[in-house]
Amino acid sequence: MKINGTPYRTIWPGNDGQSVVIIDQTQLPHRFETVTLRSVEDAAHAILTMQVRGAPLIGATAAYGLALALRADASDQGLANAIAFLAKQRPTAVNLRWALEETRRTVASLAPGARADAAFAKARAIAEDDVETCRRIGAHGLSLIRTLSEKKKGQPVNILTHCNAGWLACVDWGTATSPIYQAHDAGIPVHVWVDETRPRYQGASLTAFELMSHGVPHTLIVDNAGGHYMQHGKVDLCIVGTDRVTANGDVANKIGTYLKALAAHDTGVPFYVALPYSTIDWSLASGTEIPIEERSADEVLKMHGRLPDGTVATVDIAAAGTPAANPAFDVTPARLVTGFITERGISPADRTGLLSLYPEQRETAA
Amino acid sequence: MKINGTPYRTIWPGNDGQSVVIIDQTQLPHRFETVTLRSVEDAAHAILTMQVRGAPLIGATAAYGLALALRADASDQGLANAIAFLAKQRPTAVNLRWALEETRRTVASLAPGARADAAFAKARAIAEDDVETCRRIGAHGLSLIRTLSEKKKGQPVNILTHCNAGWLACVDWGTATSPIYQAHDAGIPVHVWVDETRPRYQGASLTAFELMSHGVPHTLIVDNAGGHYMQHGKVDLCIVGTDRVTANGDVANKIGTYLKALAAHDTGVPFYVALPYSTIDWSLASGTEIPIEERSADEVLKMHGRLPDGTVATVDIAAAGTPAANPAFDVTPARLVTGFITERGISPADRTGLLSLYPEQRETAA
Repeated sequence: MKINGTPYRTIWPGNDGQSVVIIDQTQLPHRFETVTLRSVEDAAHAILTMQVRGAPLIGATAAYGLALALRADASDQGLANAIAFLAKQRPTAVNLRWALEETRRTVASLAPGARADAAFAKARAIAEDDVETCRRIGAHGLSLIRTLSEKKKGQPVNILTHCNAGWLACVDWGTATSPIYQAHDAGIPVHVWVDETRPRYQGASLTAFELMSHGVPHTLIVDNAGGHYMQHGKVDLCIVGTDRVTANGDVANKIGTYLKALAAHDTGVPFYVALPYSTIDWSLASGTEIPIEERSADEVLKMHGRLPDGTVATVDIAAAGTPAANPAFDVTPARLVTGFITERGISPADRTGLLSLYPEQRETAA
Repeated sequence: MKINGTPYRTIWPGNDGQSVVIIDQTQLPHRFETVTLRSVEDAAHAILTMQVRGAPLIGATAAYGLALALRADASDQGLANAIAFLAKQRPTAVNLRWALEETRRTVASLAPGARADAAFAKARAIAEDDVETCRRIGAHGLSLIRTLSEKKKGQPVNILTHCNAGWLACVDWGTATSPIYQAHDAGIPVHVWVDETRPRYQGASLTAFELMSHGVPHTLIVDNAGGHYMQHGKVDLCIVGTDRVTANGDVANKIGTYLKALAAHDTGVPFYVALPYSTIDWSLASGTEIPIEERSADEVLKMHGRLPDGTVATVDIAAAGTPAANPAFDVTPARLVTGFITERGISPADRTGLLSLYPEQRETAA
């Protein structure tokens, strides 16, 4: 999508053929900076520190990171070490392991000398595949928004989203935002309630930034406010992304998603989860099996932002010594989810629904 | 309660008999400062800017503010003007209007020359009444915690609270925190999950500060996390305060309370609301009649905190020009509330339950 009129993706190969360039998302929305990754350590650092984040982008970055690793050491041991090193950076993100496995499969049978180029090509293919997947998710989700818009006789369709499942979380388009961008581009009036999404406030720093950059009407709200707006008929539709969906339709997503799903269920607002096929973990029977990442207490205790002079600073919001806990994800039970929007279409949020879209998984699904 | 070993209340008459002293809660937890109020404008400013906040403390401050106004102009017109001026500072807080009406009733029939002293005496009585009311709320709530502690065989009872319904919101003890302080003081092991409570993060700045000052084990979490902990059996009990309860048991409280009540209901965690009698608005039949205060978007867009050098600064967390909305309260339907803890005991959260505690309201209840 566009930033100040210039089309961007979130990750692209460097001109030297030896590097990969990313947008440093930890600097947004205050500074727009790109970072060149030249080693597997650079890629791991980018994943761990969330310079790149979002399931699909983490996957693409991991694939490129593996390619960078193979430039340095293309031996079997080098391949195995790099995969183990990259996989441990974000334990909850299934796309990370999926992309590493896809790339491993592509290169493992090749002679070491051919592995790095093949891995780069595979990483590029994974990125292109994600763009096309997100475009299709948007096309399917667009139909939901179009129907609501017709019901509302042209009044803006109010869509609530949590965290950032936008193009900055993918390579382009986004998952949850793809239907929104496509509706907006098709001239359907939409307005987005953007949950700020503490503790890292990706809604404030990324989703609001994205929507502003593209010209989509939106309003930033605290995570506490969405239920109130649903009670008052101010939300027509919720669309969120996900980090992992299990075979029964349970949804791991950014902490707080469960609370919004409860409110949507209580108030009769449709609650959809947008996802690419690679986010489905067919090996897990239910969400109780998903490990939940515990992140640093500093994310709760400290906030980053612009001082009046424009410099970016970190402030402590609680008294020194305050203990804090920081679970990064929660699991929304499938019973609270109206449906899934995938690149193959829309389905109910259950095993049968998922298998209707992905019948080839009948044998592998837990 | 105590701060660094010194017992404090949140509001007390100045030594000169012409002023009132408060703790400036906008400076917490970074600085502990008191402010002397010498005029009705000072009192209104303290209420509007939330130097004082919390339903009972707003009430006590309003009563003292009316007394200060009468020192300057004790005429009938002066009395009416001061009441109107103070009442409009926080439209949702029923205690504000309640305390003004109580004080008006006390002084209206007196000669103007006697009104200021009588109003000061009434304000002191309102403050003392709040201390005793909160102490009783704690004694009743203590029984709930004691029962849970016995079930858990001495393992800490995990209590989640939202916003600050602590002693800093009252004159002493607090409402939601009074049972917690009394349990802790009685040697019952408790641990408090403190919702940070965006946008003003009173949980981080006030509740965590209170509990730390008194030595009660606690952990600060973002507002998004409580549902996750409830799903995982890490919350035994929720206790929150309220700004207004209607005759049918609907609860207006800090934005986000509704989401926690939904999660508690979904996971079978008891959800109690602690309140003094003055918070019940018998004139309203249900929560849909409660006006919801919309506060400044800056509260969403800006965060205050300590820089590394100890100075307090404000940072912008979103891109310049980001639109934001900021409803201050939401309404939790009575069906999601397990019960009320009041100074008269514990009741179910419905009209019958409330009237069982306050039978004298049978005629007045909407």
